[in-house]
Amino acid sequence: MAVTLRQSDADFEQSFAAFLTTKREVSTDVDAAVRGIIAEVRNEGDAALLDYSLKFDRTDLAALGILITRADVDAAYATVDQEAVEALKFARERIRAYHTRQLPADEHFTDAVGVELGWRWNAVESAGLYVPGGTASYPSSVLMNAIPAKVAGVERLVMAVPAPDGVINPLVLVAADLAGVEEIYRVGGAQAIAALAYGTETIRPVAKIVGPGNAYVAAAKRQVFGTVGIDMIAGPSEVLVIADASNNPDWIAADLLAQAEHDGSAQSILITDDAAFGKAVETAIENQLKTLPRASIAAASWRDFGAVILVENFEAALPLANRIAAEHVELAIEDANGFLARLRNAGSVFLGRHTPEAIGDYVGGPNHVLPTARSARFSSGLSVMDFVKRTSTIKLGPDQLRALGPAAMTLAEAEGLHAHGRSISIRLNM
Amino acid sequence: MAVTLRQSDADFEQSFAAFLTTKREVSTDVDAAVRGIIAEVRNEGDAALLDYSLKFDRTDLAALGILITRADVDAAYATVDQEAVEALKFARERIRAYHTRQLPADEHFTDAVGVELGWRWNAVESAGLYVPGGTASYPSSVLMNAIPAKVAGVERLVMAVPAPDGVINPLVLVAADLAGVEEIYRVGGAQAIAALAYGTETIRPVAKIVGPGNAYVAAAKRQVFGTVGIDMIAGPSEVLVIADASNNPDWIAADLLAQAEHDGSAQSILITDDAAFGKAVETAIENQLKTLPRASIAAASWRDFGAVILVENFEAALPLANRIAAEHVELAIEDANGFLARLRNAGSVFLGRHTPEAIGDYVGGPNHVLPTARSARFSSGLSVMDFVKRTSTIKLGPDQLRALGPAAMTLAEAEGLHAHGRSISIRLNM
Repeated sequence: MAVTLRQSDADFEQSFAAFLTTKREVSTDVDAAVRGIIAEVRNEGDAALLDYSLKFDRTDLAALGILITRADVDAAYATVDQEAVEALKFARERIRAYHTRQLPADEHFTDAVGVELGWRWNAVESAGLYVPGGTASYPSSVLMNAIPAKVAGVERLVMAVPAPDGVINPLVLVAADLAGVEEIYRVGGAQAIAALAYGTETIRPVAKIVGPGNAYVAAAKRQVFGTVGIDMIAGPSEVLVIADASNNPDWIAADLLAQAEHDGSAQSILITDDAAFGKAVETAIENQLKTLPRASIAAASWRDFGAVILVENFEAALPLANRIAAEHVELAIEDANGFLARLRNAGSVFLGRHTPEAIGDYVGGPNHVLPTARSARFSSGLSVMDFVKRTSTIKLGPDQLRALGPAAMTLAEAEGLHAHGRSISIRLNM
Repeated sequence: MAVTLRQSDADFEQSFAAFLTTKREVSTDVDAAVRGIIAEVRNEGDAALLDYSLKFDRTDLAALGILITRADVDAAYATVDQEAVEALKFARERIRAYHTRQLPADEHFTDAVGVELGWRWNAVESAGLYVPGGTASYPSSVLMNAIPAKVAGVERLVMAVPAPDGVINPLVLVAADLAGVEEIYRVGGAQAIAALAYGTETIRPVAKIVGPGNAYVAAAKRQVFGTVGIDMIAGPSEVLVIADASNNPDWIAADLLAQAEHDGSAQSILITDDAAFGKAVETAIENQLKTLPRASIAAASWRDFGAVILVENFEAALPLANRIAAEHVELAIEDANGFLARLRNAGSVFLGRHTPEAIGDYVGGPNHVLPTARSARFSSGLSVMDFVKRTSTIKLGPDQLRALGPAAMTLAEAEGLHAHGRSISIRLNM
């Protein structure tokens, strides 16, 4: 059973603060191991990839090849359900349409002094997309990572996916192909991140690496950060559902379980102003668990990390939602728009009673790679912006240098940087 | 003497590739020490800040106080040059005007199916600005870090600056005050980063930490990343000057030295199409070094990391510039705009013969916190975007759920996530 917190209780603030800081993941310290793997890939290149794949994935890349060929991708198409392919295409078009609106505009203007100013955006030249193997190998995540890069204009998009026991989810290869990924490697773990960052004989290095992974992958991304760009470090997923008593408890229960079934450290939180409705949702969860294939995972998540928070009214829920800063927020309340206007910290918001979060996982259009573990307080979901970077521009003529130069020379002097001052004064004949 | 590379030489590619990968900093492994400091601050709070300040900065915070008071700031105003204060105000207005244009717009639209989509931007609630002590304690950097946060709408802006031997650069306090920083702490190093990330009795935690620092500060930022947001990890500064023979060699020499005087691991690179002009610049550098207060630093930087690259023409310089991906690029050539249009990787570009880079350090308007060490390939300078984050939004009604639901259910099924599918089917009465 999930925990119940009542805002009217005297010790609510204490309980809520403790709830917020609950660790949902055991952080295993794999830094040293990962440091060794990265050094080995830098020194030994492809040979290290072969060794590690044999050791960790029980896969002989000498036989299978590091590169996944066009024939491999065609073979994958032959084994997958055509309905799933059509669904991926449907998702691709919606995701592409939404992300195309994120393309930022260049700026160029002349200020009152006559200084020309502005900035220009350029796509990252190459990006590596990591895709986990096994059960977390999601075709939908391939689309969500690859499409923003393509929309941004990244020319070279590389994917790395391990093949534990030689097996790769064929729908992952199909999704990659549909998203326009033309270079795929059969390698995973920290060794894949090292290869993408530093290169090997077979794999040319990329400028930026994105995509989720296990503790080794996360540690490797942290270590190569600076040599290449990385996206956020993803933690276990979470949903905050804010719902009034006008909702069907079965619908809300289904939404909470959809989050809980991801893994045992996922988190589902219900905030409601009606204790009876909260109870009804809890009962519905118990009932639905009986027929859920992943019931044991979902039950563990709901038991260990689930919560029902009872508030006096939704005005009072607002500061709580901002402190939770959830990855996903469903607003199944009358004034969803009013609540949204003052909700500061959230990865993605699902408005109204007919927008279950699962729509956003697949076909909504917005990205499903979102800030977890309260990081929506300071970061955003994956977007086109992650695959572009900005160059600022400035142009002065002699008149503008006369106008701006003296103040710059004063500050350079104050900072003890005389050559800075001289580069200006020499042009002003001073 | 700087190295000279000739693009026409047979071994140019090899030399240039080696030049690109030259390490300019000795990376000291302070990870374990920093891990200890962070743990100590988390456990002991203010007491740890007092201990470390005594040990590392020879400063007794029990006597001086952790908080820098309004009286301290007023006292700082009394000691600084009024001309410098006016120059800071001039810089502030220009930086603010430029950054105000970076404020991103919210988006809201309805697609062909009737799905309401969009996103909303919100400022980070609180940000911590780290300012180094000693000679790298630059008032201009205070403006460059604080103003984008203020423009973004960050309500709580906190500054941490160490007081080695009790001393803080008074102009740093004045710059903070002018930029609207109302909360300043007399603490530095990894302990300051830990305090900003986790809080102590005196210092409430922030959501994001920005600002440059030494190896301890950089390692601490890397370690707290995830608990809070961080900006990029700054490396030694660099300039790439691309200049033809129509330039005054003295001007270009001054620009190269302005970069070199920062520190011994700074880097100044000249690309020119005229060998005689390159020689003239080198001679001018030798001459100017004779009268430069920071001559020994600048000479070491130019000797160890400086380079003159001779190209056939500026068309041939373009791929080199993109590979160098310099923090600062000066384009002192005829067709500067044409070159800029195809320059992909650069932090900030200075166009024409009257825009020395030093203008951008102080009063140009664009930010001077820029990607170093080739990271302009994948990252941007500091901006308002670093202090805002995006929440995506989506709203479906019953009709839209009927239109999008089936494809989502197909993909959920393919990924083995049955509760995802159920959260949709239950609303469609399926």
